[in-house]
Amino acid sequence: MLLCDIGNTSYHFYDLQNDYKKDVACFDPSSVKEDVYYICVHPTLKKRLRSLSNWHDLEERIDRTNYYDTMGVDRIVACEAVQNGVIVDAGSAVTVDVVRDGIFAGGFIYPGIRAFQGAYASISKNLDLELRFDTDLRKLPKSTHDALAYGFLSPLLKEIDSYDMDIFITGGDAKIIQKYLPHAKRDDLLLFRGMLLLVGKQL
Amino acid sequence: MLLCDIGNTSYHFYDLQNDYKKDVACFDPSSVKEDVYYICVHPTLKKRLRSLSNWHDLEERIDRTNYYDTMGVDRIVACEAVQNGVIVDAGSAVTVDVVRDGIFAGGFIYPGIRAFQGAYASISKNLDLELRFDTDLRKLPKSTHDALAYGFLSPLLKEIDSYDMDIFITGGDAKIIQKYLPHAKRDDLLLFRGMLLLVGKQL
Repeated sequence: MLLCDIGNTSYHFYDLQNDYKKDVACFDPSSVKEDVYYICVHPTLKKRLRSLSNWHDLEERIDRTNYYDTMGVDRIVACEAVQNGVIVDAGSAVTVDVVRDGIFAGGFIYPGIRAFQGAYASISKNLDLELRFDTDLRKLPKSTHDALAYGFLSPLLKEIDSYDMDIFITGGDAKIIQKYLPHAKRDDLLLFRGMLLLVGKQL
Repeated sequence: MLLCDIGNTSYHFYDLQNDYKKDVACFDPSSVKEDVYYICVHPTLKKRLRSLSNWHDLEERIDRTNYYDTMGVDRIVACEAVQNGVIVDAGSAVTVDVVRDGIFAGGFIYPGIRAFQGAYASISKNLDLELRFDTDLRKLPKSTHDALAYGFLSPLLKEIDSYDMDIFITGGDAKIIQKYLPHAKRDDLLLFRGMLLLVGKQL
């Protein structure tokens, strides 16, 4: 059995021991012969996978009552893995969701690092800089580089900390965020834990 | 005498009684016969204005010792107007600067509403929505619209409030920000106040 979290650019597999990624552009899903339990936010791939009998869409097993209609399946699956806490999934977007006593309490969406950088670049050439994460957030910035990195990080971290709950960080940029939230727990397999619970639900 | 704050898109004039705007694309600065004291962030216009003898660049009168080299002249001029407080200039970028006992203590840059919206749109079609500002920030969002507006506003406001100082809001989107910071003072003429002090300095 394999678990697979499919985003816009990659298949993220987990065989219950190791996780690895395959590029959406090149990987052929019919080359996998085992049972695969997946979630998928890629609309065209989602259609294609329906025709493969060993690929099982876990989205069908979600009880959406506790979530809102347009909420991404990846956020929902992460919430399913947590009983109490704030879940920060730092990818192309940074999603921040709060779960209390196993119930989704709400959450917000913040642009990811690349999108934030693009937003700065769209304002002025002077702000078209690569975000660097060596800024000391305890000091107010006195350079453009620090003013941009601080602008991305500090408001977000203050928001996350304001909930005063355990923090779980996952996603491709989890490392960067965790550097500034040392009390948070980094869990690169959080989505897979939520998916496993959904597999168990129907087995 | 006129004061003029020139941005990327408009001349913002103040005749010490009323303020009004002219489009950078159409307005001819040589049509003004009075003395104009200005600041300008538009690089080509800055060159052109140098050839007009009644246009006086206030940037030359700034003591930059307290500021950093690449800091925008508009931010500096706003800081000059405040003795103690947080200055929020909400335009294409939202700049947040702290002044303590008349000295610039540092500040950061956050994308403005349009740039933030563009950042969301760049991530996914599902996030390509116009930001609406009817969201109740006391509740965690349970819709995409609220998740985006909250993502723009709430982290920024928590950051601004964390300094525990008087807050002065200016700029084109000041109204929207102030709606959520009712204890802040909105001052549409803040930059002109700073500019007037610079005019006085040398007169």
